[in-house]
Parts: sequence; structure tokens; C-alpha cells
Amino acid sequence: MHRFMLILLALALPLTIAGSVFHWNEILLFALACLTIIPLAGIMGRATESIAIHSGPRVGGLLNATFGNAVELIIGILALKKGLHEVVQASITGSIIGNLLLVLGLSFLVGGIRHPVQQFSRMIASTNASMMMLGVVIALVIPAIFTLNKPGIAGPLSVGVASITLLLYILGLYFSLFTHRKIFSYTESMEEEEAEWTLGKAIGILAVSSLIVGYVSEILVRTIETVSVTLGWSEIFIGVIIVAIIGNAAEHSSAILMAWNNRMDLSLEIALGSSLQIAMFVAPVLVFAGLAMGHPLQLIFSWPELAAMTLAVILVTLLAGDGESNWLEGAMALGAYLILGIGFYFL
Amino acid sequence: MHRFMLILLALALPLTIAGSVFHWNEILLFALACLTIIPLAGIMGRATESIAIHSGPRVGGLLNATFGNAVELIIGILALKKGLHEVVQASITGSIIGNLLLVLGLSFLVGGIRHPVQQFSRMIASTNASMMMLGVVIALVIPAIFTLNKPGIAGPLSVGVASITLLLYILGLYFSLFTHRKIFSYTESMEEEEAEWTLGKAIGILAVSSLIVGYVSEILVRTIETVSVTLGWSEIFIGVIIVAIIGNAAEHSSAILMAWNNRMDLSLEIALGSSLQIAMFVAPVLVFAGLAMGHPLQLIFSWPELAAMTLAVILVTLLAGDGESNWLEGAMALGAYLILGIGFYFL
Amino acid sequence: MHRFMLILLALALPLTIAGSVFHWNEILLFALACLTIIPLAGIMGRATESIAIHSGPRVGGLLNATFGNAVELIIGILALKKGLHEVVQASITGSIIGNLLLVLGLSFLVGGIRHPVQQFSRMIASTNASMMMLGVVIALVIPAIFTLNKPGIAGPLSVGVASITLLLYILGLYFSLFTHRKIFSYTESMEEEEAEWTLGKAIGILAVSSLIVGYVSEILVRTIETVSVTLGWSEIFIGVIIVAIIGNAAEHSSAILMAWNNRMDLSLEIALGSSLQIAMFVAPVLVFAGLAMGHPLQLIFSWPELAAMTLAVILVTLLAGDGESNWLEGAMALGAYLILGIGFYFL
Repeated sequence: MHRFMLILLALALPLTIAGSVFHWNEILLFALACLTIIPLAGIMGRATESIAIHSGPRVGGLLNATFGNAVELIIGILALKKGLHEVVQASITGSIIGNLLLVLGLSFLVGGIRHPVQQFSRMIASTNASMMMLGVVIALVIPAIFTLNKPGIAGPLSVGVASITLLLYILGLYFSLFTHRKIFSYTESMEEEEAEWTLGKAIGILAVSSLIVGYVSEILVRTIETVSVTLGWSEIFIGVIIVAIIGNAAEHSSAILMAWNNRMDLSLEIALGSSLQIAMFVAPVLVFAGLAMGHPLQLIFSWPELAAMTLAVILVTLLAGDGESNWLEGAMALGAYLILGIGFYFL
Repeated sequence: MHRFMLILLALALPLTIAGSVFHWNEILLFALACLTIIPLAGIMGRATESIAIHSGPRVGGLLNATFGNAVELIIGILALKKGLHEVVQASITGSIIGNLLLVLGLSFLVGGIRHPVQQFSRMIASTNASMMMLGVVIALVIPAIFTLNKPGIAGPLSVGVASITLLLYILGLYFSLFTHRKIFSYTESMEEEEAEWTLGKAIGILAVSSLIVGYVSEILVRTIETVSVTLGWSEIFIGVIIVAIIGNAAEHSSAILMAWNNRMDLSLEIALGSSLQIAMFVAPVLVFAGLAMGHPLQLIFSWPELAAMTLAVILVTLLAGDGESNWLEGAMALGAYLILGIGFYFL
Repeated sequence: MHRFMLILLALALPLTIAGSVFHWNEILLFALACLTIIPLAGIMGRATESIAIHSGPRVGGLLNATFGNAVELIIGILALKKGLHEVVQASITGSIIGNLLLVLGLSFLVGGIRHPVQQFSRMIASTNASMMMLGVVIALVIPAIFTLNKPGIAGPLSVGVASITLLLYILGLYFSLFTHRKIFSYTESMEEEEAEWTLGKAIGILAVSSLIVGYVSEILVRTIETVSVTLGWSEIFIGVIIVAIIGNAAEHSSAILMAWNNRMDLSLEIALGSSLQIAMFVAPVLVFAGLAMGHPLQLIFSWPELAAMTLAVILVTLLAGDGESNWLEGAMALGAYLILGIGFYFL
């Protein structure tokens, strides 16, 4: 996996740069940018993890919680700068339903093919379920419904909700890293892992990768409109499905690998933790970044997006709520993802 | 019970035929057709079960899963032919909420009067809950929300969603009949049952009953409009409450009998399994049948129907989720059914 | 606590009377009325409890269930008389989300600061969850959705739904006080408590307090409009947040005290039981009272109110569903309350 990523990066990055310099066809350029970001996101994830291991479990947990979705954050800020608010919201939606349904679905399915029934901590599943109901559903549905007849309040409402959400995310970290660390005991096993790179090397890799991701994301964001017009795909479909998948591909593959090895607590933590991070950290930070850049982002999602996220949270709550999984539960999550994908395609 | 049904059939069928030939009052004819279908549905259910027992557990399970709601399917196809799309959707809605709230409610209430607390497999309840969230809620809510601003996509969206739902239903059968048969251990007891009729006799009874149901359903569907106009009942109320109850009356009585005898797993399986069959087998097959007949059925339900089905699924998930039932939980489900019934009456 | 309340009452009541007689500034008068009702509600709760202890557990349970929210009932009837239907609905909404999110949130948070994990009966949590889904969500959402295209049916629908809800509330009491009393075993401990006042004294205190509450509520209801216009707060915000908090302040403090002493079953019973009482007893009684007074109340809530109540019920179901609580779960409930509060403020 590791080598495959490096080869992909070594092939796709030079071609993307060449294509950008020589103004190749924009659809080709979009595809190349996608292929470049996939391994870059993976490498950034590994570098963050190495730094986390060097920093000890608590600071490491904070680092993972802050930089774990750095690629989404960079793409989001660039799209916001260009005024592509719909793409920003679509990629938030897509990351959440992608992590909840596609990643969890593939993990349950692949793991379930090898192991008839797989078990995981009900406590972690249930804490995550409440957090998702709050951070994904309440924090995103309430502004949409309360601004129905009074769209003028969208701005202050978004800022207020983003502040509360971010505060709760920080409290959640304090809970899992400090006051109730023991119940997240699977993290112990993580602590025994050896770092892949030395601290200095990892920081260097992270810094360089971030710069390249910034450059390539700029190309990605710039070419979305052409792709949308030429292929007839709506910008919302590109954001929800394409951008979300490439930004999370690396995490997806680790979660599935963990499930195959029957380490379901880790697999679940990647899928659910990543959704929470998008909803309760990336989204609020984008709201504040938008204010700072003078491109205020209002977290007023469309009804299809809200329905998709709400139903995904409820389905995953039911699937994970009993602390057990099997291949059929994986197939159900994938089926739900397909139904949503078809819906966004036709939108 | 068995004899009562034969007497009812022996009285109602000749009168229905006479009424149809001599053009009796259409409201009387509608009532007679209803009274004829109740025992016929029961007999078809028994014949299917006999064939299933002769065929062994796996083929038998498949047969039950395919022909278990044959009456609904026949009524649906006939109504579709006449272009009564609203009646088709209403009877799907009605079968789902009827099985979830009326049947389950009566079972919990009647069983709970005799037994203070009744227990059943949480695993089966939880697998069914996820399936209902997917097959009833997501598969029916998503098309309605995604076509809000773009009604033109209803056709392809319905076909896409119906295909995924049907595939998942088949995977669900594969799961319960093949890979994870053991957890559905209560089916073992079913295997020990003796068939009521020989294979040949059962097939004959099933074939003849199907023909009669087809004939009587034609009368039922034809007279709905007159009943609606004369009595002032909306077609949606007739479909949701009346047609749904008569098509499921036989199953209803077995589920309640099982609960009285404290065989809650079987009772639950009838109520929940039947709802799933309607949502994930009958509804998609009607979509494909509509395409084939040139009367395409778009699965875009009205908001009252969607609210009724969604809330029924969530309530039943809560009621059954703890693996225990009592009479108050039965009363709650019946109360919800009554609230919905009043709502559809006034609609 | 007890003494503090008496002092508050001794100071606030004379000032309220003086202010009313000498026509002081209406905003000051509103604030004084609020400060008077807080201790009065507390004293009425204690008097009801004393009478309940003297009457034995069954009649006592009935009394608590009937007069436990007497203040809300009095305020509701007075507001109904003045035709302030929106305020009535807002204070119902506010009492429900206040009990579910604010009281439960503070209890979980305060209790969780002292005890890392607190446990309570899953059976009681789950019975309450189903009841709330029925009494809060289904009974209030269905009328709103079914009257969307047919507002004329709001009247009969409200009466029908209110009748069913009230009947189920009575059945629920019969369940917890008669057929299934044992599972509510924590009530035993209550039976050992000594009554604070003799029966005669308690009845006297209750009667006098009710009269004063009626007088002060009249002032409160009369001044709402001025407060709304002068401070720029919407009537819905005043109803949902201010009126609801002052009407429940006494209960709030007992629930939090119970949680601090790790008696979570009692704490949960106050928070959940009080919400159920508002939805399934106070609301239907107000519908019937409205009919009797010739000011029919239609229980058609606004979308923001319905969303707030529905999401509160789902979040609390998830938080309490596992039979355990911790400080983070408390913070989540408070976060949800804050988000809703901000939303209603801007509305």
C-alpha cells in the first residue's frame, strides 16, 4: 500500500505540474489533481501519526484531532476564497456521509467476509453516536430550519452554532484524552506502535506535503467548474462524491485494513472520528476562516444534504449501536451510500 | 380460526360474484370484496407455508419471502393498471404502518396481558431495525426530498432506488437463510412443523386462490372511487387503512396468536418481516411491473405518508430495541396507529 | 435552598403586588413576577409531595402526576384566555426542551463532575424514550404535517390527538403505579421519606400558593407584550426560554441535587417525567380547557418548535439509552440547549 502510494505520487504530481504549466485539458487536469491528492493525503496522515507518537498520547491525540483532516481544510479554504460556497458545503456533506456510510460500510463488509461477527466497544459507539447527533444533525439542521422564514439571521446563527460546536469538540477531546482515557483503552495499543519517521523528518514531510496539497488543491478547485459544465455533473455531485472520496481515500484504506484484521475499535474510530472532526472542527474553522477572509460561510445546507447527513447518522447509530457488525450491515451502509450517490448525481 | 375463514369465504365469495354479475350497489360490492379477500389471503398464506415446508428450509424461506405478500402484489398491479397510483402508494404505506404499529401493537398488548414481560432476540430486532431504516426510511424519503426542486428526475431515481433496495432484500435473505442462519434459530422450530397439505394440493390451492384474488381485487379496485365519493372518505384513507388491513388480516391474527403463546420471536418476525417485504420486495417489483406495463410508478410518497412511515419505524425501533415488551408498549404502538388513522381520515 | 426560597418569596411578592397596584414599569413588573413564581413553584411542588406521601404511593403518584406541573397549567390557561396562543405553545415547547436538555444536561454535568460514570435503570430510560417519541414527537409532528395542505382540519385533529395522548398518559400511570410497579423500585425509597407538612397544612399551602400563582401569572402574561416590544425579544423566545425556566426552576434544582448525590434514577425521573407530563397531560388539558373557554387551542406547532422538540427527544434517547452518564454527555445536552436558545433568540 505504502509503495503503491509513492509510485502514484511520483507519476501523478509531475504530470499535474506539467499540465498546469502547459494548460492541458481541464478535465484531464482535474483527474490528475485528484490522483495526486490521494497519496498526498495518505502521506500527511502518516506524518501526523509519527509526530503524534513522538509527542506522547495526549499531545498526539490533539495533533491527530487537529491535523487529521488537513486536506479537507486546505481544499475548503481555497474553495471559500474563490467564493465556491456550495462546493465547500458539498465537500463537508460528502466527507461526513463518505466516512459514515462508505468507509464504515466497506469496513463492515470486508471484515464481515472474513469474520462472521465482529465486536467492538458499545461505549465508544454510543458516545460517538450522541456526538454525531449533536455535531452533525442538531448543529446543521437547526440553522437551516430556523432561517426558513428569516434568512437574514443566517450569519450570526452560523457563528453562534460554530462556536458551541467547536467548544464541544474541545471538551470531547478533553474527555477522551484526560478525564476518561481508560475507556478508550484501544488507544494504548496505538501507543506501543513505533513511529515511521523521526520527529524532524515527519515535520518536514508534513510541511512539504501541505505546500504541495495547497498547490494541487488550487488546480482542483479551479477546474471544478469546467468539469461540471463539460460532463454535466452538478457541482454538488462533484463536491459530495468526488472531492470527498479523494480527500479521504487514505483513511478509507486504513479503516478497511483494520476491519480485515478484526481491530474493529480502531476501524470504527477512524470512520466515526473523522466524521466528527469534519462536522465539529473543520466546518466551524471554515466559518471563522470565512469571516477572517471576508468571505463569510453560512452553514445553511440544502435539504438533500441535510437529509443525507441526518439519515446517515441515524442508520450508523442503529448499525453500530449493538456493538456488533456483520457483512450484511456493511452492505446496508453501502446501499444507503449508493442511494444517496444516485440522488446527488441526478440533482 | 381455520374453519371460520372457510365459512366466511363460502358466504362472501358467491355473494361477491352475484353482486358483480347483477351490478349491485358498489359500496356493498366493495364490502363483499373486502370480506372475500380476508380469508383468501389467509388460505394463500397457509398454502405458501405448506409448500415451504415441503421444499426444505432454504427454498421454503425464499418462497415465503417471495409469495408472503402475494395479495398486496396482485392488488397493487391491478390498481397500477387502472392508473390509481395514489391507491398503490397508499396501500404500501398502509401495509407498512399496519404491520409495524397495528400488528406489533396488538401482539405486545395481547401477549402482555397474559405475560408481564415478554422477551425476544435483540439481535433479530436490531438487524430488522437497520433494514427498516434503510428500506423504509432512506429508500422512500430520499427520492421525495431530492425531487422537491427537480420533479423531472423522479423516474430514473425511483428505478435506481428500487434496484438497490431489491438487491439488499436478496442479500438479506442470503444472510438469514445461508451465512447467518444459526442466529435465526427460531426457524428451526418451524422446520419441525408438519405441512397442512401435500405439495400438489398446496400448489393447486395457491393457484386457484390467486386467480380468485385477482378477480375479486379487480372488483375492489373498481369500486374504490364510488366508495370514496359516496362516503366522503379520501382514496388515501381507503388505501392506507381499509385495503391494508384486509390484505394483512390473516397475518395479523397469526402474529397475535403467537404473542399470546409467548412465542415473541415468531410474532416479531411476522410483523417486522412483512413490513420489510412490502418496502423492499413488493414496492420495487411494482416499480418494475409499472415500467413493463407502460404505467411507470414513481415512488414519490406524500409528506403525510413519509412522516407516518418514518415515525412508525423510529417508534418500533425504540419499542423493540431492548428485546423486551409489555402491554404498555403495545398500547403505545396502537396509540400511534390511531393518531395516524385519524390524520389520514381527515386528510 | 428551602430558606433561600422563602426569603426570595418574602421579598419579591410584596414588590410585585405594590408594582401592580401602582403601575410600575412593566419590564420591572415582569422581572418581579418571574422572581415570585420561582419560589412559589418550588413550594407548590413540596406541598404536592407532602400530600402524596400522606396519601400512600398510588394515590400519591397520581397526585404528583396531576399537579406536578400546576404552575405551567395555570400560566397556560391564563395565556389562553388572553388569546396568546403562540405563548402557550412556546411555553409547552420550552418546558419540554428545558426539562430534556437543560435539566438533564445540568444533572449529568454536575453529577459527572463528582462521579466519573453514573448509572441508572435502562428499563426506565427506555420506557420513557418510547413514551416521549409518542407523546412529544408523533403527537405533535403528525398534526403539523397533516394540516400542511389542509389547515381546516387542525381543530378536530388537535382534539383527536389530545384524547389519545391523554388516554396513553393515564395508561402509563396505571402501568407504573399498578401492573409494573416493581420495576420502578426507586419509588420505594420515596415512600420512606417523611412528609414535610401535615396533610391539612400541605393542602392549605397548596391552595393559597395556587391563588397567588394565578394572580402573579396574570401579571406575567399581561406584561409579556411590553417586554417583547421594548427589549426586542420575540414572544416565542420569552415563552420558550424565560417562562419555561421560571416555571421549572424548582424542579431543576432538585434534579441537579439528586444527580450530585448520585441518585440518578430520581434525577432522570424528574427531567423525563416532567417533559412527559407537559406533553401528555398539560398540553391535552389545555386543548380541552380551550374548547371549554371558547378559545380553542390548536396544537399546530411551528417548524422550529417541532425541530427543537424532535431533536431534543432523539438526543436524550441516545444519551440515556445506555443506562450510563458522564459529564461530557451533560455538556452535549447543554450545548444542544444553547444552540436552540440562540436559534429562538434570533427568530
